[in-house]
Amino acid sequence: MVKELQNILHSEIPLTKEIGIMAREYTGDSLTLHAPLENNLNHKNTAFGGSLYSVSVLSGWGLLTLLLKEHGLTGDIVIQESNTQFLKPVEFDLSAKCAFESDEQKERFLKMFKRKGVARIELISRVIHENEPHVVFKGSYVVHA
Amino acid sequence: MVKELQNILHSEIPLTKEIGIMAREYTGDSLTLHAPLENNLNHKNTAFGGSLYSVSVLSGWGLLTLLLKEHGLTGDIVIQESNTQFLKPVEFDLSAKCAFESDEQKERFLKMFKRKGVARIELISRVIHENEPHVVFKGSYVVHA
Repeated sequence: MVKELQNILHSEIPLTKEIGIMAREYTGDSLTLHAPLENNLNHKNTAFGGSLYSVSVLSGWGLLTLLLKEHGLTGDIVIQESNTQFLKPVEFDLSAKCAFESDEQKERFLKMFKRKGVARIELISRVIHENEPHVVFKGSYVVHA
Repeated sequence: MVKELQNILHSEIPLTKEIGIMAREYTGDSLTLHAPLENNLNHKNTAFGGSLYSVSVLSGWGLLTLLLKEHGLTGDIVIQESNTQFLKPVEFDLSAKCAFESDEQKERFLKMFKRKGVARIELISRVIHENEPHVVFKGSYVVHA
């Protein structure tokens, strides 16, 4: 399922191939996306903010895509607003993990989506390295049937 | 000067070549960056959020780079926090314009940077098409000598 997500990303958002996005860990409650630092260097030889943003926003987008698939649902997932904090430079391969806040959050979202055909959810993605948060991304997504 | 900025972007942040970033209009008070939609499509055939973010964050980064150059200064410009609102889908070539809020804002920033060797500034970049704002990006940048 996570391999299928990676194929969707590469075929539908071609820039993700240049970023080198790889989808690996999916638990049902969280998704982690990776990308090699090499493809995403900036002027300081750390990860470019636009690449960190892309990996973060897509970890939330991918988590929702997989949730819908698991429930046999289809929908258009769109980012509406985001806040991104760059706490420390990222000097290693990029990885962003997005997780639902709780089972309740996930269930509330699914219930609303099934009932109204549209639902909103706020997700947090984090780039963490050796237990230290480096980037914290909060995104508001809207999903339309 | 704007051509030099484009070369800096392409050589120091290689992903900007894949995004197709072009630097064109620089007035001293504002900078506009462009990128072709073709390189930056998403699953809905509109502009990918990560690309819009990249063009936006770099229009602020580039504006500060050119400001420093004009004043014979050098510094490391880093994005610290950003808020991005995606108001409408972008179905055309990407362009983000970043402008100083006022001459006072620019002068305050330069004065602080010269005095302390470090200064902070909040810049707004907008993607506007036919007078309608489509993306509004607010970024807090820190510049160290």
